[in-house]
Amino acid sequence: MDLKETIRTIPDWPKKGIMFRDITTLLQNGGAFKQCCDELYERYKDKKIDAIVGIESRGFIFGSVLAHKLGISFVPIRKPGKLPSETIKQEYELEYGKDVIEIHKDAIKAGDKVLIVDDLIATGGSMAAAVSLVKKLEGDIVECCFVIELPDLNGREKLKGQNIFSMMKFEGD
Amino acid sequence: MDLKETIRTIPDWPKKGIMFRDITTLLQNGGAFKQCCDELYERYKDKKIDAIVGIESRGFIFGSVLAHKLGISFVPIRKPGKLPSETIKQEYELEYGKDVIEIHKDAIKAGDKVLIVDDLIATGGSMAAAVSLVKKLEGDIVECCFVIELPDLNGREKLKGQNIFSMMKFEGD
Repeated sequence: MDLKETIRTIPDWPKKGIMFRDITTLLQNGGAFKQCCDELYERYKDKKIDAIVGIESRGFIFGSVLAHKLGISFVPIRKPGKLPSETIKQEYELEYGKDVIEIHKDAIKAGDKVLIVDDLIATGGSMAAAVSLVKKLEGDIVECCFVIELPDLNGREKLKGQNIFSMMKFEGD
Repeated sequence: MDLKETIRTIPDWPKKGIMFRDITTLLQNGGAFKQCCDELYERYKDKKIDAIVGIESRGFIFGSVLAHKLGISFVPIRKPGKLPSETIKQEYELEYGKDVIEIHKDAIKAGDKVLIVDDLIATGGSMAAAVSLVKKLEGDIVECCFVIELPDLNGREKLKGQNIFSMMKFEGD
């Protein structure tokens, strides 16, 4: 199945001029969701990864499946105030204003091989912040993995020096 | 492995007097996370379920794995303003104030057999709201499924008429 065809495009959402790529139609299609996660598993099964880091909250959906299939640790990166134990935080720029994400300090050990997963890369700000958090914990980042990439927004620029993988690209955003 | 032993308790978080049950230590333990999802799969594999509904955002972690293993639809219930297509909303009471969750109108078809998954049941407010959303879409709710239950908070009261399953209970909250 061509997974790209299971993505729904919503024009002018959340605001005029944006073509929003909606993964919920992929998730709703049991066969497509299974195929998507199976393909990710095939890519990473022999990479000796220790932990999957998923970015709240759509990154949790793909990241947790992959961690389960690999039988390894799943580590959530969350919005501030959600993680109950000791955390480190990272701020990043939004189009208007700033946002912050955090990770538990004890979630990754120095030298752990880490894959960071999110559903979509647009400008790359949240993934760059996630990379910075994992580096502060001295994790060894194997790759940054996305289901969807919007290449026109140049997210790869913010992730220089990292391996980047996306399953599908949508141009014209 | 006794999964209950992989849960970390954080006293006085997010405020004095609360014993917070932290699932991130279960997730971080690859073997525990795998066992947890495998046990859920064994429980539901022969129930002919059509869709797993997961409540944002920790419900996404367990719900998506289960949907993937069953090869069926995963449907996210989200905070307001996150789902791009047409939704229905449900308000529910918090200790102080109110909250709202929503679901895509086309995410469930009338008669679909649905399992709703969340990480934890405390007072049951968000699950009761999720039940109401699935009923409005005429889904047939098989069960409400939780990893952790806090029985002292009487969440089952709010879910009368529903089948309820929890993997582990923590008393004394």
